[in-house]
Amino acid sequence: MPASLKLELVNLVVVLVRTRNPLNIGAAARAMSNFGAHRLRLVNPYSVAFREARSAVGASELLKRAGEYKTLADAIADCSLVVGTTAGRHRTLQHPLRRLDEVATELRERLQTARVALLFGSEKIGLTNRDFSHCHWLLTIPTQKDHISMNLGQAVALCLYELARGDQRDSSAATPERATAATNEQISQILFEALAKSGYIQPGSEAACEDKVRRIVLRFGLDPQDANVVLGMVRQIAWRLRQGKA
Amino acid sequence: MPASLKLELVNLVVVLVRTRNPLNIGAAARAMSNFGAHRLRLVNPYSVAFREARSAVGASELLKRAGEYKTLADAIADCSLVVGTTAGRHRTLQHPLRRLDEVATELRERLQTARVALLFGSEKIGLTNRDFSHCHWLLTIPTQKDHISMNLGQAVALCLYELARGDQRDSSAATPERATAATNEQISQILFEALAKSGYIQPGSEAACEDKVRRIVLRFGLDPQDANVVLGMVRQIAWRLRQGKA
Repeated sequence: MPASLKLELVNLVVVLVRTRNPLNIGAAARAMSNFGAHRLRLVNPYSVAFREARSAVGASELLKRAGEYKTLADAIADCSLVVGTTAGRHRTLQHPLRRLDEVATELRERLQTARVALLFGSEKIGLTNRDFSHCHWLLTIPTQKDHISMNLGQAVALCLYELARGDQRDSSAATPERATAATNEQISQILFEALAKSGYIQPGSEAACEDKVRRIVLRFGLDPQDANVVLGMVRQIAWRLRQGKA
Repeated sequence: MPASLKLELVNLVVVLVRTRNPLNIGAAARAMSNFGAHRLRLVNPYSVAFREARSAVGASELLKRAGEYKTLADAIADCSLVVGTTAGRHRTLQHPLRRLDEVATELRERLQTARVALLFGSEKIGLTNRDFSHCHWLLTIPTQKDHISMNLGQAVALCLYELARGDQRDSSAATPERATAATNEQISQILFEALAKSGYIQPGSEAACEDKVRRIVLRFGLDPQDANVVLGMVRQIAWRLRQGKA
C-alpha cells in the first residue's frame, strides 16, 4: 500500500486554545485520525462547542477522550517542547518564528523521544502573547503574502501532514532530552518570586515581567539534569530572600 | 518576511466535482487564497450549496468568479494535465496511483508551462470511475491505514500547500549570535556570589560549585540580548542579598 504512513505521532499533543467553533474541533480531530495523532487537549473551549462536537453522531473516540483544561500551563505540563502556531502578521513577536517546512525534520526527531505540544489559538485572535510566553518557539505555515489567515482545521491538517509524512532520512542524530514544561514553569515562578523580592520588578509590570521570565527560561533549553540543578539554585535563593529582611 | 511564498499557482485549476456542502466549497476557496491559486471550477455542485457559499458575507472574489460546469469534460477542456485525487481504498484503480509528496516536484514543473487540473470528488463517494477516466493519473494523500478519508477542505489545503511551498531548501539558516565569554563569566560570577550568600554552597566545595555554575550558564547558550537581561536579574538579586541580613 503506497499511501500509508509508517510514522505515528504518538508523542504529539495537539492543544486547541479557546476554540469556539465545534466544526473546527471536529476537523482537528479528524485530521489527527488521518495522521496518527491521538492526544487532543482543549484549553477553555467555548463549552457549548466542545460538548456539541464531542456528542456529535460519529464523533471519534479521540474526540471523546480529549482532555479539557482550565489553563494552558496545565495542558502542557508533561511536554518538553512547546510550539505555538501563528500567522505572524499583526504582532511584534518576541520569539523565533520558524517555517513549518523548515522545522519538520527537527520536530520529527524530537517526537521520537519526547512529548511535544503544538498549540493552535482561537479562530478570531489566535494565540495571545501570554500564550506565546509558554512556547519555546513559534511556527508559521508559509502562505501568500497579504492573504487571510488559515482556517483552523486546515492549519492542523497541514502541520500533522508535514510531521507524519517523514522524510525517510531517519537521521539518527539523537536530539538531547529536554525538561518538561512543568519543571520550566516551576523555575520561572520561583525566579519571578526572587526577582520580586529583590525589587527587580517595576510596579505595574508584573504580568509582562512574568512572561519575560518564562520566555527566557524556555530559551535556556535546559535538559532534565540541568533543570533540576537550576531549580535547586533558585529555590535556595528565594528561600534566603524570604528569610532576610529584604 | 520568511513566511511568504514566491510561487503562485496561476496555472492550477481546482475542480470540485458534485460537492454538496457549502462549507467545503468555502474552505477550498479559502485554502486557494492562502496558497495563491485563483481558478476554481465546480462541476454540478449541489446548487443550493454553491449559491449559499457564493453569496455568503465575506465570500472571496475567487469564489464569486468560480465557474460552474455541467460536465467534467467542459471544466477541464483547457488543461493539459488532469489529476484526480482519491483515498484509493475501496476501488480497483485502473490508473497509476501516486503519493502527493512524491509527485509534488513534477507537478510544480508542469505548472510552470501548462495548465493543470486537480480534481476533488464529492464528500460521500469521491470521484467515480467515470471521472477517473478523464485523468492522466491519480494522486493520494498518504495517511494512516484504516482511517477515515480526509475532509475535503483539508485535502485541498494539503495539496495546495505541497505544490506552493516549493522546495526552497536554500537553508541560509544563519547560526544565531551568542553572548561573549566575558558576559557569560560575569553572569556566572554574580550568580555564584548569590548562591554563596543564600547558603547553597557546601563548605569545601566552592571551586567545584563555581565550575558547575559556569558550565550551566554556558549551556544556556544565551544570545547577547538575553545575556544582558539575565545579567540584570542576577545583579539585582545579588544586590538585595548583600543588603539583607542574610
